[in-house]
Amino acid sequence: MYNINETIVALATPPGVGAIGVIRLSGAKAIAIIDSIFKGKKLVSQPSHTIHFGKIMDGDKALDEVVVSLYKSPKSYTGEDVVEISGHGSQYILEQIINLCIANGAHMAKAGEFTQRAFLNGKLDLAQAEAVADLIASQSGAAQQAAMHNLRGGFSEELKAMREQLIQFSALIELELDFSQEDVEFADRTKFYELINHLNTSAQKLADSFKLGNVIRNGVSVAIIGKPNAGKSTLLNALLNEERAIVSDIAGTTRDTIEETLNINGVLFRLIDTAGIREHTSDVIESIGVQRSMDTMKRADVVLYLYDVNTTTAGEIKEQVAIFEKEHIKYLLVANKADMWTGNEESNTIYISAKNKDNILQLKQALYKLVVEGEINTEGTIITNARHYASLQEVLKSLADIKSGLDNHIASDLIALDIRRCLFYLGEITGEVTTEDKLDYIFSKFCIGK
Amino acid sequence: MYNINETIVALATPPGVGAIGVIRLSGAKAIAIIDSIFKGKKLVSQPSHTIHFGKIMDGDKALDEVVVSLYKSPKSYTGEDVVEISGHGSQYILEQIINLCIANGAHMAKAGEFTQRAFLNGKLDLAQAEAVADLIASQSGAAQQAAMHNLRGGFSEELKAMREQLIQFSALIELELDFSQEDVEFADRTKFYELINHLNTSAQKLADSFKLGNVIRNGVSVAIIGKPNAGKSTLLNALLNEERAIVSDIAGTTRDTIEETLNINGVLFRLIDTAGIREHTSDVIESIGVQRSMDTMKRADVVLYLYDVNTTTAGEIKEQVAIFEKEHIKYLLVANKADMWTGNEESNTIYISAKNKDNILQLKQALYKLVVEGEINTEGTIITNARHYASLQEVLKSLADIKSGLDNHIASDLIALDIRRCLFYLGEITGEVTTEDKLDYIFSKFCIGK
Repeated sequence: MYNINETIVALATPPGVGAIGVIRLSGAKAIAIIDSIFKGKKLVSQPSHTIHFGKIMDGDKALDEVVVSLYKSPKSYTGEDVVEISGHGSQYILEQIINLCIANGAHMAKAGEFTQRAFLNGKLDLAQAEAVADLIASQSGAAQQAAMHNLRGGFSEELKAMREQLIQFSALIELELDFSQEDVEFADRTKFYELINHLNTSAQKLADSFKLGNVIRNGVSVAIIGKPNAGKSTLLNALLNEERAIVSDIAGTTRDTIEETLNINGVLFRLIDTAGIREHTSDVIESIGVQRSMDTMKRADVVLYLYDVNTTTAGEIKEQVAIFEKEHIKYLLVANKADMWTGNEESNTIYISAKNKDNILQLKQALYKLVVEGEINTEGTIITNARHYASLQEVLKSLADIKSGLDNHIASDLIALDIRRCLFYLGEITGEVTTEDKLDYIFSKFCIGK
Repeated sequence: MYNINETIVALATPPGVGAIGVIRLSGAKAIAIIDSIFKGKKLVSQPSHTIHFGKIMDGDKALDEVVVSLYKSPKSYTGEDVVEISGHGSQYILEQIINLCIANGAHMAKAGEFTQRAFLNGKLDLAQAEAVADLIASQSGAAQQAAMHNLRGGFSEELKAMREQLIQFSALIELELDFSQEDVEFADRTKFYELINHLNTSAQKLADSFKLGNVIRNGVSVAIIGKPNAGKSTLLNALLNEERAIVSDIAGTTRDTIEETLNINGVLFRLIDTAGIREHTSDVIESIGVQRSMDTMKRADVVLYLYDVNTTTAGEIKEQVAIFEKEHIKYLLVANKADMWTGNEESNTIYISAKNKDNILQLKQALYKLVVEGEINTEGTIITNARHYASLQEVLKSLADIKSGLDNHIASDLIALDIRRCLFYLGEITGEVTTEDKLDYIFSKFCIGK
């Protein structure tokens, strides 16, 4: 629970040392609070969307030279008065300034509270607000584009259109209830069937996109398995080395997170359990049938089975494929050391030389094709949020109930209930209907300062 | 070497995930570059110090919704046109935007290049520019205040005053050279003596402040030594626990750096080699005379010798003090478990009970008094930079040479040389005289984006 009358403050930039750090305040007293600690100009009399240089004063003591950005209500991120202070990027000084704001009446913002206020003030709907969090967390082009589409309200518009069509019909059905004694039908049942079918198709399409959306948002985990001499370590390097050259070089960027990831056509593939591969020289596992390989395989979305094409028998491969099929594991067969090999090629296998980096690009495309069918069309809506998916499932269920009600000519008042249920779940995604507890839960997953 | 005609770009906020990240551009093409990738308004026709909402476009693809801040030359940090882009705090997206700026003609900024440009454009002198780096690195109130004093030009003004007085005299001495055949003295030798004495006092005061400045900037390393049962671990917790309650709580702040530090009256004390103390239960060292204790003692600025007042003999303490004196180690004698003790108190010893937290505050004040004599007066200039200290040493040397020249009535042309040398070193601190190599070296120690 939070009090919208409070003015909130938080660090908006990442912690750590940088050239600058930005502190954000939002609320009715934001400008007054900064005016009481800012030496430069009287900010309250300055226009919105202007920048002012001055000092933050703790009594007589200047804490920092800063630049203050003013956003006056309603033209701000939250819809309230917002002030941003750009100070020197010392964690110590930024903490001092935040403490000073709190001493002057601001309250420390909770996670996601700025965006929650933007939602409550009608600046964003809930699906757009969630897209903000997705955008911040995005690590690939596809994730970024999907989040941008939702932030711009693409998804919300589709839902709104569906909701409006249904509300029109709902009004007619509810009207029938008022005249229930007279057995009239204001709502044209044929057109209603058409609408329900149309809505069902749209909702199903959105729900179906979640499979891809999940891949886009969370990436795809890939395990490379194979015997110790199959060339796993060489393949790992071949896959990663190409990638590294592409990533732009910003000093201080933590590389750990991108070290073992591949970005293929904008989708993030995470190579899991690579520590085992890197240490493979001391690997004593002679067969891939052991428990550890099995665990790795089951944790992965996709398994690359790498084998030495020159020394591996068809029987061994068949045995491995049988395990994949039995365990419902998505897999790619990758024949390594194919540069020295002259046999016939199987159509379901990719022939590479990890050492010479032959066919690495083809391997990547095959990996992509295995999880993404066709091109990712970022123009259309892709559901990336499990909460939205769950709501859409409920929408589909209620549509099925409406249809079955129509098929069985049940009473209008019962159909009206199913329509309201459908409207509820559609509205839940954009936050048109929601509870405070649910909102608090959704925004608590945001980072502080957003 | 760098090209001031280039427009530079860098991430100005720390790397990592935050609500927002800020990208900074500076140079003649800064506004044009952003205009070519920004969809919202034409920025070039907007006034300085204004803020504009829009999208960063990579062709048809919107990369991010951002807020752009405009600073038009000369009213900016660097004195050039500066544009700051506040985007969503995804490292991936921020990298994309930086890459897009580079593709449109910007160059990746080198470390400190923004501040170097501010210096070259006369927005800051060198001592002020160095204060910016000190401010960003500051971790305590005293370090922050010393840096703020220097950033505001307090130090520079003192140097400028000294330089101007000397230049006036220098002009008169140089005039004598023109009339050297006539043996005239334009420069009043008595007043000249007075000036040199005055300058010597000022320069010596500044140089002397470096001892404190070094403490303020780098903190004081403190080692706690003592026998295994002396209560080192309890004292460590007593010292640190009090501190933790004071530090404001910003989510995500790395605590490692402040975990083992104490802030006493604004000065940072770092407790070193505390790992050994934390593991003391399994400590097998029975005597403090071992090599490891010796190494720790020598690495520390101050050593706390902690002993159990009930079981330690006067002889043991005397032996330990003899080691401190021999090795020129600053030390404090701390008698622990004094709550159960009834003997006479020595004046050079602090009596505490680590367990009951008795006299911990007194111990802290004694620690502070040992390294800082009197109050830190942050109104006056405190030299915190080793480069400035080295230059001041040269200033003092040349002043001594001038004085000895006057004492020995040596020729004006030789005195004039010493005056020029003194002026050179005074000017070197503020950057009035410098070389490009030296500048590059100084700014290379800054962080990227500043």
